[in-house]
Amino acid sequence: EVVPTCERYAVRRLPFARLADSDVAFFERVMPGRVVTGEEEVKPFNVDWLKSVRGCSQLVLKPQTTAEVSQVLRYCHERNLAVNPQGGNTGLVGGSVPVFDEIILSTALMNRIISFDKVSGILVCQAGCVLERLNEYLEEQGFIMPLDLGAKGSCHIGGNVATNAGGLRLLRYGSLRGTVLGLEVVLADGSTLDCLASLRKDNTGYDLKQLFIGSEGTLGVITAVSILCPQKPKAVNLAFLGCQSFAKVLETFTTCRAMLGEILSAYEFMDEKCMELVERHLKLSSPVTDSPFYVLIETSGSNSIHDEEKLNNFLERAMASGLVTDGTVATDDKKTKVLWSLRERITEALTHDGYVYKYDISLPVGKLYDLVTDMRARLGRSAKNVVGYGHLGDGNLHLNITAESYSHSLLDAIEPFVYEWTARCSGSISAEHGLGFKKKQFIQYSKPSEAIMLMQRFKAMLDPKGILNPYKTLPSAP
Amino acid sequence: EVVPTCERYAVRRLPFARLADSDVAFFERVMPGRVVTGEEEVKPFNVDWLKSVRGCSQLVLKPQTTAEVSQVLRYCHERNLAVNPQGGNTGLVGGSVPVFDEIILSTALMNRIISFDKVSGILVCQAGCVLERLNEYLEEQGFIMPLDLGAKGSCHIGGNVATNAGGLRLLRYGSLRGTVLGLEVVLADGSTLDCLASLRKDNTGYDLKQLFIGSEGTLGVITAVSILCPQKPKAVNLAFLGCQSFAKVLETFTTCRAMLGEILSAYEFMDEKCMELVERHLKLSSPVTDSPFYVLIETSGSNSIHDEEKLNNFLERAMASGLVTDGTVATDDKKTKVLWSLRERITEALTHDGYVYKYDISLPVGKLYDLVTDMRARLGRSAKNVVGYGHLGDGNLHLNITAESYSHSLLDAIEPFVYEWTARCSGSISAEHGLGFKKKQFIQYSKPSEAIMLMQRFKAMLDPKGILNPYKTLPSAP
Repeated sequence: EVVPTCERYAVRRLPFARLADSDVAFFERVMPGRVVTGEEEVKPFNVDWLKSVRGCSQLVLKPQTTAEVSQVLRYCHERNLAVNPQGGNTGLVGGSVPVFDEIILSTALMNRIISFDKVSGILVCQAGCVLERLNEYLEEQGFIMPLDLGAKGSCHIGGNVATNAGGLRLLRYGSLRGTVLGLEVVLADGSTLDCLASLRKDNTGYDLKQLFIGSEGTLGVITAVSILCPQKPKAVNLAFLGCQSFAKVLETFTTCRAMLGEILSAYEFMDEKCMELVERHLKLSSPVTDSPFYVLIETSGSNSIHDEEKLNNFLERAMASGLVTDGTVATDDKKTKVLWSLRERITEALTHDGYVYKYDISLPVGKLYDLVTDMRARLGRSAKNVVGYGHLGDGNLHLNITAESYSHSLLDAIEPFVYEWTARCSGSISAEHGLGFKKKQFIQYSKPSEAIMLMQRFKAMLDPKGILNPYKTLPSAP
Repeated sequence: EVVPTCERYAVRRLPFARLADSDVAFFERVMPGRVVTGEEEVKPFNVDWLKSVRGCSQLVLKPQTTAEVSQVLRYCHERNLAVNPQGGNTGLVGGSVPVFDEIILSTALMNRIISFDKVSGILVCQAGCVLERLNEYLEEQGFIMPLDLGAKGSCHIGGNVATNAGGLRLLRYGSLRGTVLGLEVVLADGSTLDCLASLRKDNTGYDLKQLFIGSEGTLGVITAVSILCPQKPKAVNLAFLGCQSFAKVLETFTTCRAMLGEILSAYEFMDEKCMELVERHLKLSSPVTDSPFYVLIETSGSNSIHDEEKLNNFLERAMASGLVTDGTVATDDKKTKVLWSLRERITEALTHDGYVYKYDISLPVGKLYDLVTDMRARLGRSAKNVVGYGHLGDGNLHLNITAESYSHSLLDAIEPFVYEWTARCSGSISAEHGLGFKKKQFIQYSKPSEAIMLMQRFKAMLDPKGILNPYKTLPSAP
């Protein structure tokens, strides 16, 4: 059983109103049959995917329309009731579940595709659409989503945008800050902000939607998204390679970036500990073995002959120069999926290894693995496993530490060491996971106090009562 | 002689302080020898590149450091003196020159490159670096800037970011919202906001820098920029083609996007009127003639043999199916530059044709040219020329109307017709030029009133005295 967050972290509840029967009755009138109460029914919404944090909400609301979201927030604002917006609940920093009794506003039933234009590649849909469903829909029309991540089967596009999700395709298609073209957002007071443009370019005034991208539901509830989707590549190739050192992982990266150029669509790495865990806990087996590091390179292009020629030229060079000692290549869909799962399911394998301390760090790429080595040396036998993997092409390390169970003393050995280490390299203490509940007190390691104060002023302006996803993203007052 | 803006547009001066000798003396102490006074010396900074608007500033300041910018703004904020930040003064909507006597804060001497990392491709530089200089610097190291535009020889990167410039490479490398990784900004009160991260990914709190991208100097003065630069392509090919109808221009686009895929880096179009003006006023001659429309297609890739094969396959298809009736291809640098100049110098050719009414519109690509046709029919002989060109791949039309001289009656025939037409198609009345002085009263054609009010609240919060680039971007109170 997960310890309630407010107990484990000794948080104090802010003076929001308590849910009354009359509130539930109001919501029942707004959305009959889509109001969830009862401890067991609400429980899955109270606990995060990692089973690391747990809220005590008594109510889940499942609106279908923006008008319903607006009614809910207008009412909660008036009543001073706190609200926790929730998408697929796949977040890794405790941002998607309540800390106390916040009302959970789920986008699960807001899953309608509004429009797709095949000429421009612009998709408009409700916030609750599941990423994988959207990608399937687009593939039928010759397009794909510009983002992909391990949680694709459950995560919602609204949650992806609210957390500025990165993932596996960022190297190629860029961040959501470039691909999201428009948003519809309901503000804390229930008013609706319609910035749902379907235009590639629009320089009429300040780009308000950017403020909501990555704000983790603390400034408004995203109800619809307009997003630019790339064409489905005609050819996708995967290479899964073994490298004998991290220096060779780096050199392999610069070599393949130069030789694969515009068709490079992913450059992922994992250490041998990751591979061990995936094999042990998920019974997956790797076709490449006996290497301290593994690299996954994906190409996506419009001409399979050209792409294979580029990839083969690169592989020949990499093997001949000893950058890579072993490897396998996949072009068919089935083998591609199998190889990708070795990388994508590391997060899942880690959860089977015990309690997981998760760190998602941006660093200059040359120093990326030093943090793992240093941490391993520092923790010694007090940790079960210390592993490193991630989006090397983006300078993004996932550092994970497992132990039999949660312990304050191990946490104290890890933090603030990991944040200080990162700050010394001018890195980011959250590359793509956001701050949520678990990381918010560490924002000052990556942002100067003037920036944090300005964020707090934005929060106060847009949500003066602080009802939207309280206890998240911004540090609480000392 | 250009009519002063405040006279032509009957604007009322806001109650800012008037410049006193003691102010000039203060600035002389802050930056000795870099304070410009005297009507003739200040004049080039008072008039825009188009010679369409003219301010009456008596003072230009040329700081070299962020600390100097900070000192200037702290002083001006205290004294209630209005400030007009200015980069290369190449803007097209009157945003870069004063309306009255605002002090001009020029970034001309802030032209230092701070760092470039060859592994990550991240450039950090001061705001006053000229775009073309930066590109030359990067090319020596095997990289390029992610943006390119006709004004590259004079425009400053800080101005590019402040106006969220689009340009010729957006189709391939995306907007500055994705490629700008960090900014240093001095706020209206002189405080410095350091968000100058050099990380591809950073989800620690709200992305404050986005608010300054495209804010046209009304929220803060950008003093330094961190930007992600792509590798220099090993092969660049250009095709300049003639099409017999706009429908064929569109079909050529979808065909080439499918066949060229990831190597397509620009798809520009121009009508025959544009070509006439470029030939008449600039004495350029086109190798392709007798077509109502011309298309410029650029490919950028890492393998010249592959790229040429892709391009040739596409051209064969386009010629065989009658999409294209005539054309020429360039691979060498010299011919490439000549062909690009036919497209890039249209703006310049237009200025030689008389007074130019400029519109920069985003539209669904299928309707892009209908606006030109409708406008031509509407204006008849009251306009000298009505031309259409632009970044078709981005859905961005540049509609330009020339006349012997400025006239209120012609303006009334064009506006609000052009904006109403655009709003009916859910387009943007400013795709990439911004609103500046000339377009700010039309923002409501592209943004709902709730969004405009929110923008005004951000402005009031960040610049409570309204000293930064007043009379620009946001509509004045009715």
